[in-house]
Amino acid sequence: MEESALSNRVSVAILGATGAVGTELIELLDERDFPLSELKLLASPRSAGKTIDFRGETLTIEAVSAESFKNVDLVLASAGGSTSQKWARVATEAGAVVIDNSSAFRMDSDVPLVVPEVNPEAASDRPKGIIANPNCTTILMAMAVWPLHRIEPVERIVVSTYQSASGAGAKAMAELLEQTKAILNQANPPTESFPYPLAFNLFPHNSPLNDLGYCQEEMKMINETRKIFDEPELRLSATCVRVPVLRAHSEAINLEFKSPISVDRAREILTAAPGVKLIEDWQANYFPMPIDASGQDDVLVGRIRQDLSHPCGLELWLCGDQIRKGAALNAVQIAELLLQENRQNLSQTATTSKSAI
Amino acid sequence: MEESALSNRVSVAILGATGAVGTELIELLDERDFPLSELKLLASPRSAGKTIDFRGETLTIEAVSAESFKNVDLVLASAGGSTSQKWARVATEAGAVVIDNSSAFRMDSDVPLVVPEVNPEAASDRPKGIIANPNCTTILMAMAVWPLHRIEPVERIVVSTYQSASGAGAKAMAELLEQTKAILNQANPPTESFPYPLAFNLFPHNSPLNDLGYCQEEMKMINETRKIFDEPELRLSATCVRVPVLRAHSEAINLEFKSPISVDRAREILTAAPGVKLIEDWQANYFPMPIDASGQDDVLVGRIRQDLSHPCGLELWLCGDQIRKGAALNAVQIAELLLQENRQNLSQTATTSKSAI
Repeated sequence: MEESALSNRVSVAILGATGAVGTELIELLDERDFPLSELKLLASPRSAGKTIDFRGETLTIEAVSAESFKNVDLVLASAGGSTSQKWARVATEAGAVVIDNSSAFRMDSDVPLVVPEVNPEAASDRPKGIIANPNCTTILMAMAVWPLHRIEPVERIVVSTYQSASGAGAKAMAELLEQTKAILNQANPPTESFPYPLAFNLFPHNSPLNDLGYCQEEMKMINETRKIFDEPELRLSATCVRVPVLRAHSEAINLEFKSPISVDRAREILTAAPGVKLIEDWQANYFPMPIDASGQDDVLVGRIRQDLSHPCGLELWLCGDQIRKGAALNAVQIAELLLQENRQNLSQTATTSKSAI
Repeated sequence: MEESALSNRVSVAILGATGAVGTELIELLDERDFPLSELKLLASPRSAGKTIDFRGETLTIEAVSAESFKNVDLVLASAGGSTSQKWARVATEAGAVVIDNSSAFRMDSDVPLVVPEVNPEAASDRPKGIIANPNCTTILMAMAVWPLHRIEPVERIVVSTYQSASGAGAKAMAELLEQTKAILNQANPPTESFPYPLAFNLFPHNSPLNDLGYCQEEMKMINETRKIFDEPELRLSATCVRVPVLRAHSEAINLEFKSPISVDRAREILTAAPGVKLIEDWQANYFPMPIDASGQDDVLVGRIRQDLSHPCGLELWLCGDQIRKGAALNAVQIAELLLQENRQNLSQTATTSKSAI
């Protein structure tokens, strides 16, 4: 029984296969030996016809159409909100489950918002056939705060972010490099992906602002964390800032707990937390840095300190790969939850040959 | 009377004249028409003999010695803590007032710590003849928080900084550029001024850590703000981070007031605050940025928002030139306070011809 379940392979389509996250999704499916029966690479007509090597085969990128989702079990979508809005229903009506990396469905009460280390159980209740992947900064913060919160309740979070160019996509990463070269050559830096120069500069996150002056990125951190933690009243405030770093995000997080918690206790909890790596070399003054977090699966956490301004406060610092755990890895982990569910269903029913995903 | 006071000129020595702050001090004395009878440029023997053009004259840098301070009224010291420890007493014994930019005397209860827009009166009580210039991040934060605090008391401050290379000196700024070039050329970045690469990276401030895990830079923000505000019990916590920016620092500041304060009220107060410029273009999503703050005297403040996690909370964002208002300008402004004091003394006594500085 176990064997037949394990041999069950799924047909996966990646929507937005040429973007920074799409590229990482393809790598992760390979790296994690995801049991594929087929891999379809979908993108806009502009990218159609390009090829990508995968497990010794040459895959050709197809322009997405209604036909694309036939016989597809699982869609990993990372092509932005409007593309997801357009294609998610087409895909689910064709029978696929969609794991969506955009913000299109995250706050939809019929769509679970999942960080596998935090709320894996939520993934199985998906009335629309869609599971949303949270925003990168939200995922990274949830990874560090949830292990503490489930043992010692957190009452308030104040976070400041240091967000890399990758958050705005592969083109933005290239633009940061181009801007840097231009400035070193005393030329004007190009600003297409970003409204202002990011090289040797930084600025508050340029997503649209609401009436209270919070940008979308900040509201994502606030609302998504409440949903993932299932704590609609959790008090949060956020300041999101773009910095001239290529691909990992950093966050300075101030936590107020219900009761005092010692630094040692927090350290103990985070040392045991899955997907979290404690990096604290107090002698060498060495803590998490974006260049060390880049390409890593784990969220690097460190500099845990008693907050000197609050008896129940802790300060902590983290860096995490925005493309990996902040996006593609989390999506693939959600897909792995579905595989598990599928195997359990198979082992319970032992009747169907069709994938239950 | 007024005329004779205004014609009173002072002999100034700059200790550390070749550093980033020293260079800016020289520029500011010129720019602000500081009434000099003489300008002496002092530095380590390594820099002695170099020349600097100033107001049409060529000044030669002297190696600092006990003789250097003869007939000097005012010393602007910016050569680091150990140099100040070594020479401040020599200078004051020779009759000079020392405005010290290092951290050597800042927490000495016999040394006032002054931000002219906040506590100008403190400058006149200087039993040791030394006035300390606060740390750059402290000055910038005090400029934005004090105007609010004096009208609507602040109970708690949680700040995260985004600190430029200039905080580690002129060599560090050059190193950031060299590191950037090296990385663009796929070479190893040099790390002499910084322990880790700063180009396309960032890291918690690398000043020495105390037993609670706070670095010196963070403790400066906490302790110096308390002293400047004369609020020894003010609750503060800080996370200081170095970012790959050349010369202006940024800060994300979360404030908890005793009573609720509206964003409009805060905006009104900060619009009227001296040395502060409100930069908030909500339509264009344009707020203070380091490249705009560089070379400016004003501290740029913006993104004032109600803290969504606290009924008495406000979030604000600032950028300020670390070398200018964060160091050299503040020191020159303190010197200007002394000129004023001198003039008042002269107009009161109308007897002495010697500078009272």
